[in-house]
Amino acid sequence: MQLGLSVSDSDVSSFTPLVVLELADDTKAEAITWLLNRIRDKQQNGGAELLVNQLLFPAQDDQKPNPNVFVVGSTLQRLLNGAEDVGLFKEFQDGTMRGFTYANRESFNDFNEGFLSDAECQYIIKHELDTLRAKNEEHVPGYPKLKLYPGKSVVRRLQSKGVLNQYFPLHNKEDLKRLSFSWYKKFKLSFQPLDDIRHYFGEGLALYFGFLEYFTFALVPMALIGIPYYLFDWEDYDKYVLFAVFNLVWSTVFLEVWKRCSATLAYGWGTLSRKKAFEEPRAGFHGALGFNPVTGREEPVYPSSKRQLRIYLVSVPFVLLCLYLSFYVMMVYFDMEFWAINIYNEDPSIATSILLFVPSIIYAVVIEIMNLLYRFAAEFLTDWENHRLESSFQNHLVLKVLVFNFVNCFASLFYIAFVMQDMVLLRQSLATLLITSQILNQVMEAFLPYWLQRRRNKKVHKRMRRLMGDKELPLLGQVKLETEMNTYLGTFDDYLEQFLLFGYVSLFSCVYPLAAVLVVLNNITEVYSDAFKMCHVFKRPFSEPATNIGVWQLAFETMSIIAVVTNCALIGLSPQVKAYFPESDTQLILIVVAIEHVLLAFKFILAFVIPDVPKHIQVNLAKLEFDSLEAFKKRVTARLVQDPPESL
Amino acid sequence: MQLGLSVSDSDVSSFTPLVVLELADDTKAEAITWLLNRIRDKQQNGGAELLVNQLLFPAQDDQKPNPNVFVVGSTLQRLLNGAEDVGLFKEFQDGTMRGFTYANRESFNDFNEGFLSDAECQYIIKHELDTLRAKNEEHVPGYPKLKLYPGKSVVRRLQSKGVLNQYFPLHNKEDLKRLSFSWYKKFKLSFQPLDDIRHYFGEGLALYFGFLEYFTFALVPMALIGIPYYLFDWEDYDKYVLFAVFNLVWSTVFLEVWKRCSATLAYGWGTLSRKKAFEEPRAGFHGALGFNPVTGREEPVYPSSKRQLRIYLVSVPFVLLCLYLSFYVMMVYFDMEFWAINIYNEDPSIATSILLFVPSIIYAVVIEIMNLLYRFAAEFLTDWENHRLESSFQNHLVLKVLVFNFVNCFASLFYIAFVMQDMVLLRQSLATLLITSQILNQVMEAFLPYWLQRRRNKKVHKRMRRLMGDKELPLLGQVKLETEMNTYLGTFDDYLEQFLLFGYVSLFSCVYPLAAVLVVLNNITEVYSDAFKMCHVFKRPFSEPATNIGVWQLAFETMSIIAVVTNCALIGLSPQVKAYFPESDTQLILIVVAIEHVLLAFKFILAFVIPDVPKHIQVNLAKLEFDSLEAFKKRVTARLVQDPPESL
Repeated sequence: MQLGLSVSDSDVSSFTPLVVLELADDTKAEAITWLLNRIRDKQQNGGAELLVNQLLFPAQDDQKPNPNVFVVGSTLQRLLNGAEDVGLFKEFQDGTMRGFTYANRESFNDFNEGFLSDAECQYIIKHELDTLRAKNEEHVPGYPKLKLYPGKSVVRRLQSKGVLNQYFPLHNKEDLKRLSFSWYKKFKLSFQPLDDIRHYFGEGLALYFGFLEYFTFALVPMALIGIPYYLFDWEDYDKYVLFAVFNLVWSTVFLEVWKRCSATLAYGWGTLSRKKAFEEPRAGFHGALGFNPVTGREEPVYPSSKRQLRIYLVSVPFVLLCLYLSFYVMMVYFDMEFWAINIYNEDPSIATSILLFVPSIIYAVVIEIMNLLYRFAAEFLTDWENHRLESSFQNHLVLKVLVFNFVNCFASLFYIAFVMQDMVLLRQSLATLLITSQILNQVMEAFLPYWLQRRRNKKVHKRMRRLMGDKELPLLGQVKLETEMNTYLGTFDDYLEQFLLFGYVSLFSCVYPLAAVLVVLNNITEVYSDAFKMCHVFKRPFSEPATNIGVWQLAFETMSIIAVVTNCALIGLSPQVKAYFPESDTQLILIVVAIEHVLLAFKFILAFVIPDVPKHIQVNLAKLEFDSLEAFKKRVTARLVQDPPESL
Repeated sequence: MQLGLSVSDSDVSSFTPLVVLELADDTKAEAITWLLNRIRDKQQNGGAELLVNQLLFPAQDDQKPNPNVFVVGSTLQRLLNGAEDVGLFKEFQDGTMRGFTYANRESFNDFNEGFLSDAECQYIIKHELDTLRAKNEEHVPGYPKLKLYPGKSVVRRLQSKGVLNQYFPLHNKEDLKRLSFSWYKKFKLSFQPLDDIRHYFGEGLALYFGFLEYFTFALVPMALIGIPYYLFDWEDYDKYVLFAVFNLVWSTVFLEVWKRCSATLAYGWGTLSRKKAFEEPRAGFHGALGFNPVTGREEPVYPSSKRQLRIYLVSVPFVLLCLYLSFYVMMVYFDMEFWAINIYNEDPSIATSILLFVPSIIYAVVIEIMNLLYRFAAEFLTDWENHRLESSFQNHLVLKVLVFNFVNCFASLFYIAFVMQDMVLLRQSLATLLITSQILNQVMEAFLPYWLQRRRNKKVHKRMRRLMGDKELPLLGQVKLETEMNTYLGTFDDYLEQFLLFGYVSLFSCVYPLAAVLVVLNNITEVYSDAFKMCHVFKRPFSEPATNIGVWQLAFETMSIIAVVTNCALIGLSPQVKAYFPESDTQLILIVVAIEHVLLAFKFILAFVIPDVPKHIQVNLAKLEFDSLEAFKKRVTARLVQDPPESL
């Protein structure tokens, strides 16, 4: 946020509006009054102490506008206190990153200009709204059925019962214009403005774009090797041994170096030192009211043994069952395929040649349906597991979806490679999968939503102009527009796509060296379309502080281990290698297994030897810890000097 | 230490003597005076502020006693300050473990009785002596060649130049008597008194004994399965598949559970939260004087890039060369063995039957010599790598020695198992190795040193009695005795022995199920002989704070991974399994490899799912961190209230 930005809509709102709250249009007046009072109330009375104003849209001929739209803002003082509450880390005057405190605000760099970014302000307001807790109210006023108990998050209860439709941060048009220009509008090769992205969208998204860029650059050498393979017809699958070896080393080093990059980014953004244990529980978390054993604060408590039981007795068996089902469907598909080919061979006509495509189409449709159903079930189950922290919820959801998607995407390729041992078919399948998924993705992810959004924009603009003529109210228009935009559901699907692309490249690109080239091309357009969709298609998302790419790091590492095994097996299957052991398969297999074990050992040693966090950041972190331990000692000293113990 | 213990040798020393300093008997008087002054000098003048007294032994007819023996003690106040310096963690009144500070001493449990153990007092004194640093002296007075520079550890310089012969902590006879009774003198099955051991010898040793006990108990089920195998002649190597599977699961769970046990022990002993980065550099560490980037204190600094170069360009190639040599020697041994058997078969006589033993004897002798030389070289190299922390030095030394010992011990067994595929010979070799090493160990480790020590004791006693008649000075006698005892060189060799035993059991016990029984028997006597040697054979060692068994955890885990691979291979070789695949070796190998991969994956998932630190300790640690971060914020607040910034 530009502190001191002048408020242009002074007739609508007397402060810089940051977050929009939309209640259902039939919300009872007493509930609204109560909620606004709680939001405005002083902190010592348990309120959020934020500024909130109603937005009144002029009535229209065809439809009644929702009267219950509010914008929330805050004083600078309150935001700074909130920054301390959420444990924001900022650059201290000595260059290290330290937990911000209001009292020593002047000791932080750049305190006087643009200290808190827009994304940070909105994150703070979200945090304060989320932690606005019921006091002694037994229910929401006007809604006897909306029970409350002390400590229950008010916003969450309203949201889960449909009284609060949504709340989301507003775009900042000036900043957005500047960001989108430096990000994707100038047609000049350059790195993405990661710091600006982080400034506007928060750390979670900036890390995703950082990873996307890093991954794309890392693929370039592989793509460069792949092109001559293709051009000079080296791509006959006799010659892929060299490529497989390159694959192995590349995928290990790639991930280890990324860990260091992400630690460097996260340190600079002040998220590396933030402690997970001090996160507020996620809004959906429920349990009997108790005391957090770490902070001593009152909050819902849920025994982790119960959660473990739910995970191991329900979720894990369910996932295994789904995987079995997925395998079963795949086998049915191969049977159908076999049957279709047989029919075609017996009677090659146009009708039967069309029949050849039927199994693939059915399989694709069934997989899509299964994916959808499974995703729904996974979200339900993970929610039911009742994780305390949002990060833990996300991790369990990601793991569930990931395993299933992995099997769905790769099981058929593995089957073709190792059971059917048909490398030509493998290459065909891989190329088809990569190209179609790429085209589909771009369309579904960016252009379709953009087109829908544009149509909606025009309608809204027209309606607003009809109503108000020349008297333009930019804020009203903006809120109206953004309220109707789609909600961005997080980086989940974007990472999943990259994960599957990484799988295609690291597992099978030795069979189809052009895969890396295709992925690089895909990712270059992906950067643009993702950037565009973030800026213009979706509602602005709340920023999420992130230290690293989380469970995805683990997922990519697991994939790279599977890649070692797969590549070794592919090498073992290659006719070139087989030619060395004309009389004995046994010897060949033993040698391949031995090499695989050596490579895996080498991989683990490499991962162990390369430190995850660069040296200078390790030093800074140790320094912070040392200082805070010393401070703790001194605080106790100070207390005891004031109030010396009786004995001695 | 029992605070307030009466000083019985008031004519020799006016305080409880804790540590003995022995200087060379020809040390110049000015150097002694200077050293004693530095030790006695106040802390603000850069001294250690300890109490130190000379011990004068009466002259003897046959030899002149060393006049330069000193005992060091300390006031309680100084010890408590020192406890704060070394960052000791103690139980706070709320039951958590917190860093001790002198100012809030009364808030710690048991402050008024036996607060600091003997081992802790001696550790503090050692720390204060080690960190007694040169100020502006250019050399040690009287020794122009013993150059000093500001910040150089005085004690280390004196020690490395032979002026300081040794310094060691004194035994406490009362405590020792009580400890040895509860530890090994009562013949009743019970756990070891780990807390008492830790109290007397410190955390490092207590963790070793804890691990020894845990390992032994963990082996009992395996031993119980092994006995019927032996008694009912199940031990023909057809039937070892079941045993191998049991082995696999056991070795994984065993190590994961130990991690939790050791975290629980270390938390209770207050070492879990101590930060590695705040350790003082080890005495042997040298470098240009600079500032520690973490603490800001002046100390020698050595660029870690130089250290890395030394490790990767010199140490690693050297170790690899030695491993190659070791393999080469093994191959020569097998050639000799083959040659001897051939000669015997051609002409079976007494002379040639004796010849059969010659290769084994030569091999054993050569291995012993190689081990000795290698150990010496490894110590030299690791010292030359110039590690800043003692723990890092130990880790690198352990890794070097461990890899070499692993190859020496197991290479021949692997060769017999997988190249010669001779299971009968494997069983014989294993039994021979286990039994002989066991007997040798007990003799070399405990009984021989005990016997030597007893002879020395008697001599010293006789001499003292002759000199002083009835006028007994217990302190003089004790110091005289302990000065001449051997120095305990740390838990290194003890862990190495357990590591090799673990290897025998986890790698090959399916071939020879009695191995676990032998190891259990060995370890039961090992507890007694180790306890005995700690109490009566060696000088008391300085306690070393330890959080876990350090690099040994990694070593044992690596061994358990190798065990999975080995056991799978042994299963694949078993005639029983081979019988299932009569026509195709290839299929058998593929299935074994697949099972191995599944087991390895399962192992990693298990290690990932079981948390390393039990929940309640995680909570306590997070609480401490939360409190100290809050305190840091408040301290800055307090400072700013006193001295508000000008602007605002």
